[in-house]
Amino acid sequence: MAKFAPRIKGDQRELGLGRHITTQGRLINADGSFNVIRHSNSFWDNAYYDLVTMSNWRFFLMIFFTFTTINALFASLYLLGGTEQLSSTPTNSYFDAWMHAFFFSSQTITTVGYGHISPTSFSASLLASLESFFGLLFFALISGLLYGRFSRPVAKVLFSQNALISPFQNGTAFMFRMVNPRRSELVEAEVEVSLAINQRDEETGEIARRFFRLDLEISRIAFFSMAWTIVHAINANSPLYGLTEEQLMDANAEFLILLKGTDESNEQMVHARKSYISAEVVWNAKFSPMMGRTKDQVKMEVHSHKVGEYEHLN
Amino acid sequence: MAKFAPRIKGDQRELGLGRHITTQGRLINADGSFNVIRHSNSFWDNAYYDLVTMSNWRFFLMIFFTFTTINALFASLYLLGGTEQLSSTPTNSYFDAWMHAFFFSSQTITTVGYGHISPTSFSASLLASLESFFGLLFFALISGLLYGRFSRPVAKVLFSQNALISPFQNGTAFMFRMVNPRRSELVEAEVEVSLAINQRDEETGEIARRFFRLDLEISRIAFFSMAWTIVHAINANSPLYGLTEEQLMDANAEFLILLKGTDESNEQMVHARKSYISAEVVWNAKFSPMMGRTKDQVKMEVHSHKVGEYEHLN
Amino acid sequence: MAKFAPRIKGDQRELGLGRHITTQGRLINADGSFNVIRHSNSFWDNAYYDLVTMSNWRFFLMIFFTFTTINALFASLYLLGGTEQLSSTPTNSYFDAWMHAFFFSSQTITTVGYGHISPTSFSASLLASLESFFGLLFFALISGLLYGRFSRPVAKVLFSQNALISPFQNGTAFMFRMVNPRRSELVEAEVEVSLAINQRDEETGEIARRFFRLDLEISRIAFFSMAWTIVHAINANSPLYGLTEEQLMDANAEFLILLKGTDESNEQMVHARKSYISAEVVWNAKFSPMMGRTKDQVKMEVHSHKVGEYEHLN
Amino acid sequence: MAKFAPRIKGDQRELGLGRHITTQGRLINADGSFNVIRHSNSFWDNAYYDLVTMSNWRFFLMIFFTFTTINALFASLYLLGGTEQLSSTPTNSYFDAWMHAFFFSSQTITTVGYGHISPTSFSASLLASLESFFGLLFFALISGLLYGRFSRPVAKVLFSQNALISPFQNGTAFMFRMVNPRRSELVEAEVEVSLAINQRDEETGEIARRFFRLDLEISRIAFFSMAWTIVHAINANSPLYGLTEEQLMDANAEFLILLKGTDESNEQMVHARKSYISAEVVWNAKFSPMMGRTKDQVKMEVHSHKVGEYEHLN
Repeated sequence: MAKFAPRIKGDQRELGLGRHITTQGRLINADGSFNVIRHSNSFWDNAYYDLVTMSNWRFFLMIFFTFTTINALFASLYLLGGTEQLSSTPTNSYFDAWMHAFFFSSQTITTVGYGHISPTSFSASLLASLESFFGLLFFALISGLLYGRFSRPVAKVLFSQNALISPFQNGTAFMFRMVNPRRSELVEAEVEVSLAINQRDEETGEIARRFFRLDLEISRIAFFSMAWTIVHAINANSPLYGLTEEQLMDANAEFLILLKGTDESNEQMVHARKSYISAEVVWNAKFSPMMGRTKDQVKMEVHSHKVGEYEHLN
Repeated sequence: MAKFAPRIKGDQRELGLGRHITTQGRLINADGSFNVIRHSNSFWDNAYYDLVTMSNWRFFLMIFFTFTTINALFASLYLLGGTEQLSSTPTNSYFDAWMHAFFFSSQTITTVGYGHISPTSFSASLLASLESFFGLLFFALISGLLYGRFSRPVAKVLFSQNALISPFQNGTAFMFRMVNPRRSELVEAEVEVSLAINQRDEETGEIARRFFRLDLEISRIAFFSMAWTIVHAINANSPLYGLTEEQLMDANAEFLILLKGTDESNEQMVHARKSYISAEVVWNAKFSPMMGRTKDQVKMEVHSHKVGEYEHLN
Repeated sequence: MAKFAPRIKGDQRELGLGRHITTQGRLINADGSFNVIRHSNSFWDNAYYDLVTMSNWRFFLMIFFTFTTINALFASLYLLGGTEQLSSTPTNSYFDAWMHAFFFSSQTITTVGYGHISPTSFSASLLASLESFFGLLFFALISGLLYGRFSRPVAKVLFSQNALISPFQNGTAFMFRMVNPRRSELVEAEVEVSLAINQRDEETGEIARRFFRLDLEISRIAFFSMAWTIVHAINANSPLYGLTEEQLMDANAEFLILLKGTDESNEQMVHARKSYISAEVVWNAKFSPMMGRTKDQVKMEVHSHKVGEYEHLN
Repeated sequence: MAKFAPRIKGDQRELGLGRHITTQGRLINADGSFNVIRHSNSFWDNAYYDLVTMSNWRFFLMIFFTFTTINALFASLYLLGGTEQLSSTPTNSYFDAWMHAFFFSSQTITTVGYGHISPTSFSASLLASLESFFGLLFFALISGLLYGRFSRPVAKVLFSQNALISPFQNGTAFMFRMVNPRRSELVEAEVEVSLAINQRDEETGEIARRFFRLDLEISRIAFFSMAWTIVHAINANSPLYGLTEEQLMDANAEFLILLKGTDESNEQMVHARKSYISAEVVWNAKFSPMMGRTKDQVKMEVHSHKVGEYEHLN
């Protein structure tokens, strides 16, 4: 593995990823999350985070399941005291009585309270009073979570699936492309690209991971409202200078992309991450156009789905 | 078109608007939005954004329509099992029965639940239980959207309809005026003005759009609480120096205004945008006064509606 | 008035308060608001701002009044079709019938829906369906406003009622004191003091208002968790150097205080403002101590109510 | 106490903790709060802060107690007018009648409104109308508080229980360790360490507290997503240089740790504080490893609970 360590020089970047970092596998997954297992002690550390980041379907199923379980629990509690706890409880079968209590419970927890079933004993009245109180707390919690979910600042930026190494000016450049598919602008957008690469320590001979910041042609724009191609020229100052495709593979190179900006719809800062491992870098290709003008030359058009399209060169 | 390209020099500004930009038509519309069509793949990319930015009337009609549709749907579902599903359903006509079910549905989804109509079968009870659950989620969602709508950070700054080129010191200046019509201050307000202008590339002969930052007399103030006239002196350092009204028209000049500040009412950063195309620039005029003092000389007065008023000079 | 304009030199500060500013009266009121009348066109510009900033009592009375008015309106609407619209309507007097309808309305809008009164006609059912829908929107709006009210970032900093000019080192200093009465810290607190003062223009002879930034001994601290005395030393670099109490009065001097910091309880930036006019500046006095230690020397104590206490010196 | 004041030099840090600070006891408690008693005038200054920071159990008990108290109050009010105010009130005992009214009240305040109990008099109807209105406000308030509680930006960073003074390069270093136990990253994390230490004033002979900023090997990282060991090298530039364990004790040394960063889950700035008094500093020890790799070398693992583990060195 000696050939992959041609004494890279450059601006080392402190990413907080440590020295004990694995030299195999990727640091950042395709979806931008870190490739790490955290052994945490407390379920509650991540409860709110999980509830606002899980998919809509999982969230809905979870609260529906909770709703049904609470109702089932209260139905059983109402029946503990016997069938005379609630008005007009059927007495022919336990299942019918239980379903009767279940419906009463759901009418109580949602505060519908038709009244065709009503509590007839002291204990059932007390239980119903508690249940309606819990019900309001439960839906208050869901209200908050729903708002937390859809107001959460998220950068919905699409990245090209591959990064390219393309001809640029008189040499080559490392490039990738991003598009903002939303109608709300990302203002003061800023991007930072780091190269994570294995290097053998001169003294100890151990392989360690090093992080280099890559200079970009344009790293900050006033509005990220359409497409943006990020370009790092591979010149003599670049840590990539002189490296071949095979050397990048051998050195387990990974390009870490960090984007930040302010989402104009809610004026909150958003962050997006992306990584390209060396197998995701295509050499000698260029991105296909994805922006155009309307026929009357008056408006611009952006085709978001073309963000990853490229063509191989000769 | 050669006459419009007198080799403009100046601080080029990276706005993120790209090189493929159309050289006709305006970049930013009168309301501050970008003049661009985005072909996005997913409806959900913009769902929250649309729901919090649509007009109050459209929002209200949309949720009212949704409310009515859900009720109509559930009314039909209740009747699927026959007229004996709900208590006291009229049997004389399907329409009467359906309206009966519709009213029951609305009493269920809103959790009013008078009880003079109640579910009498197992399936109707189950359906009602589901409907009240959905109803609470629906109104929880609306609660969140309403809060999202009125707490959204928006800079309600009024801009003068026209920009002026007016006498200033010993020469002229490009000017426009803004007013903050609200009682909450915009603190640490900062404005940035860029000139977008067509230029012919020396080498390729192609016409491209260039962006120049214009120096301002005052670009940042501690409080934007009243009126603010932005002044760019057209001196030898200005990209506008020596250009005539016709040349600006020919070069499709557009002045892009970016304002940011912190709205003191909720302490959130807000951004406002405005653009003046060359046809909206009035030459040789000055703004009419819009601020005064009360008769007792003790308070200042601002007349917001006069923000765009100007007078032509001889 | 010539004596008040001893050619003040110093760092002029652009506060955004303009040149047309009145030279009488104060710029900033005692409560931190600007002393300005804004003639705005639209009620809606300030609706949300007013609703979240009005006093708790006014807010409560306003929504209670709205609640009652809507109920009264719907009560009248229910009775338009006659007394047979709602079940068990009393027919002896219009007032009794109206109150009956009023109670039904309040049971509908709050979604209580006991059911001892229920709609008996098509039109009343339809109206009740609408009312419950409006009711939920109304309380959803109030939910949001309540959250907007108590989560609004506000710096509850107490300022001393007077500023002092006190002995300091070998000369004197302009001083005032602030205290944070809350248990949540204000982190990275920063204060800026400007002097607004009348000056006669050398050339035109007109009196204009000038703004000078005053250098502070300490203008930024990591935590504003207790008391903080702000000190501007009146040395040769100070615009106040050599000015007497009378001269400050004559020149209508006003000290504008701007404080910002991050409230740790919600991590939002907050701003506070205060102004001292020359009549509120006490000469030759010093602030009384307001911090101490508990008897065991282990804890500090802050007495917030003493923030304005001072003693005259000989 | 003379031996503890070896003329410490260094970058003095303005923390806003004042000169009147106690020279005994700690400044910052183990949980990060300041060790200060604030005598505030107004309960309302801290009401919202207390409601969103109290423990979940205390919050739940508080609203449950409030709910029960309001119901008890209204139950008594309904009975003021006699037992004929509410339908089917039992007349055999006052307790039974009161519980009947209590259940009616809870059905009203939660807007369940079964209707098997309903107001039968004018005054009871009016009271019920008011109660349901208050009920909706009460739960709207709780909704907001719940959202305020779980959306509150809090840095759940775990600090090692002890700081260490360990061998480092050719000398020693002051070290402590932090871990982020959550799945959401803390981006652009920044840490600042100050030393609070007693010093005798050369001139007055009084003992005063001084604050020195300690230089850190790495004070800012792009992502705080795993573990982070903070290192201050004790070299000739360090205020700690040459001090012994006993001298630190005598001088009541306290290390103040301030961490800030942006929580990626809600993109809000968060702050964490920690302090180590000299008794919590362990000399000649090193932290045990807490990060590793999975067996396949592909993922990293973090063991949060090991954050404080260390081993003594011979």
